[in-house]
Amino acid sequence: MGRILIKGATVITVESQDDIINDGEIAIEGQHIVSVGPAGSAPEDFGPDKVLDAAGMLAMPGFVNSHTHAAMTLLRSYADDLPLMKWLEEKIWPLEAKLEDEDIYWGTMLCCLEMIRSGTTTFADMYFSMNQVAQAVDRAGMRADLSRGMIGVGPEAQAALDFYPDFVAQWHGQANGRINVRLGPHAPYTCPPDYLKKVISLAGELNVGIHIHLAETKTEIEDMANKYGMTPIGLMDSLGLFELPVLAAHCVHLDDGDIEILARKKVGVAHNPESNMKLASGVAPVTRMLEAGVTVGLGTDGAASNNNLDMLEETRSAALLQKVNTMNPLALPSFQALRMATAGGAGALGIADRVGVIRKGLKADIILMDTRKPHFFPRHDWIANVVYAAQSSDVNTVIIDGSIIMEDRKVLTIDENEVYGQIGARAKRLTGKK
Amino acid sequence: MGRILIKGATVITVESQDDIINDGEIAIEGQHIVSVGPAGSAPEDFGPDKVLDAAGMLAMPGFVNSHTHAAMTLLRSYADDLPLMKWLEEKIWPLEAKLEDEDIYWGTMLCCLEMIRSGTTTFADMYFSMNQVAQAVDRAGMRADLSRGMIGVGPEAQAALDFYPDFVAQWHGQANGRINVRLGPHAPYTCPPDYLKKVISLAGELNVGIHIHLAETKTEIEDMANKYGMTPIGLMDSLGLFELPVLAAHCVHLDDGDIEILARKKVGVAHNPESNMKLASGVAPVTRMLEAGVTVGLGTDGAASNNNLDMLEETRSAALLQKVNTMNPLALPSFQALRMATAGGAGALGIADRVGVIRKGLKADIILMDTRKPHFFPRHDWIANVVYAAQSSDVNTVIIDGSIIMEDRKVLTIDENEVYGQIGARAKRLTGKK
Repeated sequence: MGRILIKGATVITVESQDDIINDGEIAIEGQHIVSVGPAGSAPEDFGPDKVLDAAGMLAMPGFVNSHTHAAMTLLRSYADDLPLMKWLEEKIWPLEAKLEDEDIYWGTMLCCLEMIRSGTTTFADMYFSMNQVAQAVDRAGMRADLSRGMIGVGPEAQAALDFYPDFVAQWHGQANGRINVRLGPHAPYTCPPDYLKKVISLAGELNVGIHIHLAETKTEIEDMANKYGMTPIGLMDSLGLFELPVLAAHCVHLDDGDIEILARKKVGVAHNPESNMKLASGVAPVTRMLEAGVTVGLGTDGAASNNNLDMLEETRSAALLQKVNTMNPLALPSFQALRMATAGGAGALGIADRVGVIRKGLKADIILMDTRKPHFFPRHDWIANVVYAAQSSDVNTVIIDGSIIMEDRKVLTIDENEVYGQIGARAKRLTGKK
Repeated sequence: MGRILIKGATVITVESQDDIINDGEIAIEGQHIVSVGPAGSAPEDFGPDKVLDAAGMLAMPGFVNSHTHAAMTLLRSYADDLPLMKWLEEKIWPLEAKLEDEDIYWGTMLCCLEMIRSGTTTFADMYFSMNQVAQAVDRAGMRADLSRGMIGVGPEAQAALDFYPDFVAQWHGQANGRINVRLGPHAPYTCPPDYLKKVISLAGELNVGIHIHLAETKTEIEDMANKYGMTPIGLMDSLGLFELPVLAAHCVHLDDGDIEILARKKVGVAHNPESNMKLASGVAPVTRMLEAGVTVGLGTDGAASNNNLDMLEETRSAALLQKVNTMNPLALPSFQALRMATAGGAGALGIADRVGVIRKGLKADIILMDTRKPHFFPRHDWIANVVYAAQSSDVNTVIIDGSIIMEDRKVLTIDENEVYGQIGARAKRLTGKK
């Protein structure tokens, strides 16, 4: 960290569709953006320690991956094209049962490496062995919102509650403020109401939010209707969950009442279009949620069900899927999709006052994309080119919290070869393959 | 051209799901593959002029983009998120009216550059100024199936018919056999039956096939039902179109009878999932077509409606879209999707005896993908990693017709900077922007 001056970039602030600065200049001091404007707009006495020549590059806010399971990157392409329960019961769960703490650490490192290389600067994670996840995030230099998944039945239920006070004390607001903690009750169908009440009470005591899967599949809707006579959203509302800051992943199957609740209670929604497509969960009513004023971010979900962590691709898929699903080519236009992947995610994670746009005073989470690629020509519309044509491998430089984390596609915080070696060895142990 | 030996690659032949050769070796002589097998399997007397060390790389057949409008790459991101007729009438057609022959040449060059860099070795094109397109293809070193679009009303109708005899004589089977020609009647709603009969007759005389848009939108289905009391497929069948080799783009809205006809008449279908999503045309019944034995390839459509030419992304979108649309996570599994993007396209273009798989005796259209990328770890399943996780920028080397066209991401047949300069200047002239 120090003083960084980005010069010559075309700046897409994501504040509004037309807020694009040609030959733009961004001054960064410590963690923060101190000025954004055209060439020569940095403070006169701003003496940079480092100048990034960004001619031919776009500067944009980093992507906010608002829902993933980072360490599941270890399970990428381990089991695909299977029915959900067979996938879980015969493949994913048996392998997860073999995971050791160090596997979680290296799986998360692989995830961070891939996310940084594809321009993601913040992610929201739910998994287990979360101390290892936090250590990986700290070392990788990313910003993250971390939840230990909580299953509300069996011996795991109390252990999950007991885990949190220490974890919150150790990591919430730590790593230079890059790490936040939330409680992570897995879902309404794995956490009965009595357990959720304990979770709500504990979150209130610890003054942290909640990360939960909601309304992902039709089966969940049917089960909750049969059991409680309510939708998952309605059930959560009745329990008082939404009095806390909540990040709700998926929200695929919603009725009008659900959408009204999500908007009124300011629930942050993490939309995961590719996971929902691949697992055949359905298509979330994103257009209707946005119209109703719901804060919607974008997520990749875990690499076991996507199978990558590519937020640019996810942005494109979100836009295309809404159009065909509503049979309306005007649905989720390019700027709205890009905003969802950045500022929307920041809003869903409750950190829109810190990141999500390029703005003076905010934390410097900025990516530079190299536009000297055939798919970036001609230059009729920068935002359409980013959302509909660009590749995440166009991301050249990544700055998080004012630190350069990747420069000219070299990740500075992670030893790639060490990660590949660790992952190779651990995958062999887990699957018993030679 | 000469003798090339690819060593150390993991070879995905795409012959069958399990036909993956570790530490594989491919020998190429002239245009052809002379051997494929494990290390040491090349003929003993094979003295290569060039050895490609492909350790850590996948070797696969190049992608076959079975439907695009190459020169429309000039219109990429010029107009998006609009209703179809407004998009066409107010944006696309006025700009197309300004296109000069040289624009078509450079637009096609940009398209070829992008396609080569993303691993496409063959494409099927429909546009105008096709002599320029053929010249660009010849220079770029790609394989292509070229059609001049034909509108069957107005003065253009006869001109299009008159164009073909010379064009076929000059280009069909030329460029070392890399270029084929088809007649390109645009669609049933722009080519009335009487005109289509002339097209069919001329195609028979010239002994070439047909490339046509069919059943793309609901409006087309309704219009054909009102006008002829038939589906577009039924109408084409009644006119005898399918007695010729036909490449039918889109085929989104099909009834069971249509699918039966497409299978029985061996019509090649070009599925364009991202264009169909973006323009909100609908979702083609790919799974049902494949079950019925229809030959289905994959295409990107033009960059004005996609907005890139990325066949790997298109493969992933095809697989994900079929799953969510049929609400069946088993639909279009990874190998089937990959086959559609390679061998399926070759079949749809009628060249499955030449390209589409890696097999002794076929033309050497081969790509090498660099797997030393985070999204390629771990290596539980190569094909799932390619289809669900890889990026087209992982393509490192491209061989077409036995010639190395891209090596270590440098395209050898096209001067990238010249293309960017030409495109920038031409886009400015076309749009009047500074």
